Amino acid sequence: MMKGMEGGTDVVRVPFEELDGEFQRILLKNGFEQEKARTCAHIFAENSLVGVNTHGINRFPRFVQHVKEGYVKPHAEPRLKNKAGALEQWDGCLGPGPLNAFLGTQRAMAIAKESGIGCVALSNTNHWMRGGYFGWEAAKAGFVFIGWTNTIANMPAWGAVDRRLGNNPIVLAVPFEAEAIVLDMAMSQFSYGSVESHALRGKELSVPGGYDASGRLTTDPSAILESTHLLPAGYWKGSGLAILLDLIAVILSGGESTSEISARPVEFAVCQVFIACDQSMLGEQSSITSAIKNVIEDLHRSTVAPGMKEVLYPGERIVRTRKENLEKGIPVDRSIWEEVKSL
Amino acid sequence: MMKGMEGGTDVVRVPFEELDGEFQRILLKNGFEQEKARTCAHIFAENSLVGVNTHGINRFPRFVQHVKEGYVKPHAEPRLKNKAGALEQWDGCLGPGPLNAFLGTQRAMAIAKESGIGCVALSNTNHWMRGGYFGWEAAKAGFVFIGWTNTIANMPAWGAVDRRLGNNPIVLAVPFEAEAIVLDMAMSQFSYGSVESHALRGKELSVPGGYDASGRLTTDPSAILESTHLLPAGYWKGSGLAILLDLIAVILSGGESTSEISARPVEFAVCQVFIACDQSMLGEQSSITSAIKNVIEDLHRSTVAPGMKEVLYPGERIVRTRKENLEKGIPVDRSIWEEVKSL
Repeated sequence: MMKGMEGGTDVVRVPFEELDGEFQRILLKNGFEQEKARTCAHIFAENSLVGVNTHGINRFPRFVQHVKEGYVKPHAEPRLKNKAGALEQWDGCLGPGPLNAFLGTQRAMAIAKESGIGCVALSNTNHWMRGGYFGWEAAKAGFVFIGWTNTIANMPAWGAVDRRLGNNPIVLAVPFEAEAIVLDMAMSQFSYGSVESHALRGKELSVPGGYDASGRLTTDPSAILESTHLLPAGYWKGSGLAILLDLIAVILSGGESTSEISARPVEFAVCQVFIACDQSMLGEQSSITSAIKNVIEDLHRSTVAPGMKEVLYPGERIVRTRKENLEKGIPVDRSIWEEVKSL
Repeated sequence: MMKGMEGGTDVVRVPFEELDGEFQRILLKNGFEQEKARTCAHIFAENSLVGVNTHGINRFPRFVQHVKEGYVKPHAEPRLKNKAGALEQWDGCLGPGPLNAFLGTQRAMAIAKESGIGCVALSNTNHWMRGGYFGWEAAKAGFVFIGWTNTIANMPAWGAVDRRLGNNPIVLAVPFEAEAIVLDMAMSQFSYGSVESHALRGKELSVPGGYDASGRLTTDPSAILESTHLLPAGYWKGSGLAILLDLIAVILSGGESTSEISARPVEFAVCQVFIACDQSMLGEQSSITSAIKNVIEDLHRSTVAPGMKEVLYPGERIVRTRKENLEKGIPVDRSIWEEVKSL
């Protein structure tokens, strides 16, 4: 294990297997069956491995707390409610969000293998942690993937001051050589986790990310944490997208909307949509591969703007971070690592 | 016909039927068959009716020019290239964009009636004008709709200064009472048409919308028209979405990417995706209706921010504008109306 100070907090580097093993141990202790503990631990560890601690180790203690409090039911199995051809409605039965989302993705791919396109809409499920995980899962298996979730209300609609919209992250992914191109973005300009981490490091946001207590746009992360009002990405655009993603998730899954979820103090019973398309059924694979490669090569030929380092495709940094952290260990906050080991 | 000065330009109000009739006359004169002229004219007229002149009357002369120059082929019929279950790949054969998109939407709905979900991916097609039209078409027929198009490069990727991304508009729509909730948004913070119309009226943009000639973010529409560099909505977020929408459209349709389209001086042969889900197959309709109504009522209960008038759902203004313009006539620029009548 390596140690160091990064951005003012005490960081240790933990090998992937060690983190994964700790998560498994804790899940088994909290009532997860072997196979479920294995998959769920793997998702949390992978999220930290690719640099998304906010939905990996940092979130793990709260996940375990939700299991203990009964919001997340470790034994629950998703149940098919309705099959409308290539569109299936499943009840997540309040099972662990990452496991339900993993199964939703698997099932969408299985339908797509038969029908070209497959859609699983999941009601009554829980936070999937990092949605990008499922985009990588599908794209690395050869599928185009579109998936999203609704959330508890955490940002105002455009033109409003009170929080009535979820930031409803969406994931879009396509296969790319041995890896994938994966966009994983919430409808807020910054995730709440990112605002928190800026505040922790005393860093200003690069662009306005929310409102201060008086309702003015600000780049000050602490002011946003105080108001808790995140700015929709692209102002009215992120706001509109958040509304439609919520509505479509509700219609397709028959589950609860952000408005209904937010009537409770704790976020549970969210809805998610998983759409997969089987690329292998779409003609000459080599011509698809070369078309995608051309797009990425063209993007990489961009003239870099002053003050910027490089122009990357979505997911490009993930591949680098993953490689680096597999070699050097995953950088995690020492106090959080100690907290996890004590669980 | 009513006359008036609005925003400094000379505006006349033209009844819907008169506009529709003029468009039909001109299309018939330019080689469109009766039925195609009727549908295509209707789409252009409807776009102006709901207040989107940039993709209605203002764009019509350029559309006719593209027909004359052979980029848009009035007799072309889309051709099924490959059927992969509920996902179909069609060749648009360079037919008129609005007609091809209309048929793509119809076909996606027909597949969805059988399979719950249906996807039509269209290569080799042309500009669909206002994508929202097809969202309204599907949602008012009872379908959830997701559709998008790629475009010629018109904005830089995040971190770049040269234009290599299309603004690739996406449309999401759901049925809502007698109407629909429809989001129609490009990946740029403002459409090029909106920047032009701000410049014409000498109005500053409300938030930064692009870069000036020196690469600085600006709210000055003239400076953006000079550089032609639009800002992606939500900075890196709109940039990432534009990349993924392009890639998915290319994979699903087998068509050309923004990069390939941009190798030519004129935009033609774009790709589009149309996904429809049949809401009637998704359980109790009254409970879906009431869930959607609850979301909209909750949104309308928002506390309006200082300086804002009201909080609207996507498409709410369209319904009002449509009603007003049906009664009073469609406000159009006098010089453009004269130009159209002379075609």
